[in-house]
Amino acid sequence: MASNGLSLLRLTFLGTSAAAPTLQRNVSGLVVKADSELFLFDCGEGSQRQMIRYGTGFAVSRVFFTHFHADHYLGIIGFLRTLGMGGRTEAMQLFGPVGAKRILSAALHLGIEKLAFPVDIVELNGDECLPFLGLSVCAVRADHRVPALSFVLKENSRAGRFDLEAALRLGVAPGPDFGRLQQGHAVQNKYGETVLPTQVMGERRKGRILAISGDTRPNPLFAQAAAGADVLIHEATFSEEERARAVQTKHSTAREAGETAQLAKANRLLLTHLSSRFHMDTSPLVGQAKAGFQGTVEVANDGMQLEIPMSDMGV
Amino acid sequence: MASNGLSLLRLTFLGTSAAAPTLQRNVSGLVVKADSELFLFDCGEGSQRQMIRYGTGFAVSRVFFTHFHADHYLGIIGFLRTLGMGGRTEAMQLFGPVGAKRILSAALHLGIEKLAFPVDIVELNGDECLPFLGLSVCAVRADHRVPALSFVLKENSRAGRFDLEAALRLGVAPGPDFGRLQQGHAVQNKYGETVLPTQVMGERRKGRILAISGDTRPNPLFAQAAAGADVLIHEATFSEEERARAVQTKHSTAREAGETAQLAKANRLLLTHLSSRFHMDTSPLVGQAKAGFQGTVEVANDGMQLEIPMSDMGV
Repeated sequence: MASNGLSLLRLTFLGTSAAAPTLQRNVSGLVVKADSELFLFDCGEGSQRQMIRYGTGFAVSRVFFTHFHADHYLGIIGFLRTLGMGGRTEAMQLFGPVGAKRILSAALHLGIEKLAFPVDIVELNGDECLPFLGLSVCAVRADHRVPALSFVLKENSRAGRFDLEAALRLGVAPGPDFGRLQQGHAVQNKYGETVLPTQVMGERRKGRILAISGDTRPNPLFAQAAAGADVLIHEATFSEEERARAVQTKHSTAREAGETAQLAKANRLLLTHLSSRFHMDTSPLVGQAKAGFQGTVEVANDGMQLEIPMSDMGV
Repeated sequence: MASNGLSLLRLTFLGTSAAAPTLQRNVSGLVVKADSELFLFDCGEGSQRQMIRYGTGFAVSRVFFTHFHADHYLGIIGFLRTLGMGGRTEAMQLFGPVGAKRILSAALHLGIEKLAFPVDIVELNGDECLPFLGLSVCAVRADHRVPALSFVLKENSRAGRFDLEAALRLGVAPGPDFGRLQQGHAVQNKYGETVLPTQVMGERRKGRILAISGDTRPNPLFAQAAAGADVLIHEATFSEEERARAVQTKHSTAREAGETAQLAKANRLLLTHLSSRFHMDTSPLVGQAKAGFQGTVEVANDGMQLEIPMSDMGV
């Protein structure tokens, strides 16, 4: 199947609590499985144990930090040590906003024992897209109390549908030539004529989009980068009644999360980074987000796993 | 009741795994409640959430670190931040072996936000006893790959039993004078004569002893300091078949933990710091420890809580 996209795009929430863990929710962490590659977005204290609990595996190749408040990154220290003890030798890439090198270096050099594999720390400005296998990760500057990023993961577009009837009508012999056409190569039909892929393939299909706000005030630039997101994960640290505190601490309310998802014309909004006041009853947050957004609103829970289905929409 | 000891002495195990967490066991952490004071011995990653899970409360006044391998101390960073966010203003004392100031200072200054309460870091040589309310904590140099300590918590002795019949026979009037005698004060009897506490009180009773090995090769100095321990908690990272690795990595086997408890004439041995190979079936370790020790052998489990009962034995 000719495709530059992915087969599998699956999320697992490791932690959905703001600031400190509770019995129900650990601090921030999100695993994204993109085919065989595991990306981790933020890695709060205890993330490695959440990965065991929820069966994500440890084969993370890249970690993206939204910012360096304790609840978003302390878990990387123990996680990398555990990987080292487990015999890892492949390099690990860590991405984060300005300050990443200083803060992560200090964190990783704590204590005595050294890591057995190379760690590459990359600082992002918040205006770049990094291409990986089958997808890109774009960083957008967030609006928080410290340098911070939002991320938008964009799957590459996939080839269009193969029109079997058209291929037969054009005299292409069933068999390997069907595959060649789908992979983008011209073939000869039974009359010795050339048949081009464009004659039998539908238009390319839109790649999936996953947007992750990190900690931020509502940000039109993020909504723009997240345009058409299949899943938009937005922090909702506060309820609408607490908007003054959200402004003061540079977080978002649930309503503001909804409005951002609306601006992005996202399909599905997942609220995360919840204050412990809402860990048992999240319904006020959902209600407020729905007031700002016409799509589906859910609350992310620790251990929640979801696959983003492929779309058949054209690019 | 005249007593220099404690009413309550209760342990809660937060983590009993060596090196890395598993589904069943988190990394090292032990809460000791001594009346109203909470002591924490080691604080591996995720300890704060284990404290929530097992209901120990957060009002820790002092933390004792056996050493600074990652699985024994990384959790202090997030725990202190959570306490700060919770509005704590009282000082926290952190005790550890040589290097404590450098390592803990670096750990606590990671990242951006400052703590709202004073933290006092005290380095111990491993040859001192620190007096607290109703007990002392003695540090003993351990034998590990890095500077490391074992700890022995010794409750102060308690007053002997009050002999009611003797007091009546001596003509002491029932009432407040009984209390004065028990608090160590002389009183007048109904004939105007002086009655001394020693005439009505039994001999002072032995305080409880809790010994904590930390990570160490078997150590006769620790056994000596732990002599007569009601509860001796010993690491048992390896089985007897793995003794060469125990020697190489400066840990103990279960059998060696038993032998140390035997040398200390301890009452009860609890094995902890278990390799993940034994997290599901701990029976080989228990069997091997029993081969070295005539007292009770148990495996510590996460969330295990036990109260050490008072003894009526004389000092």
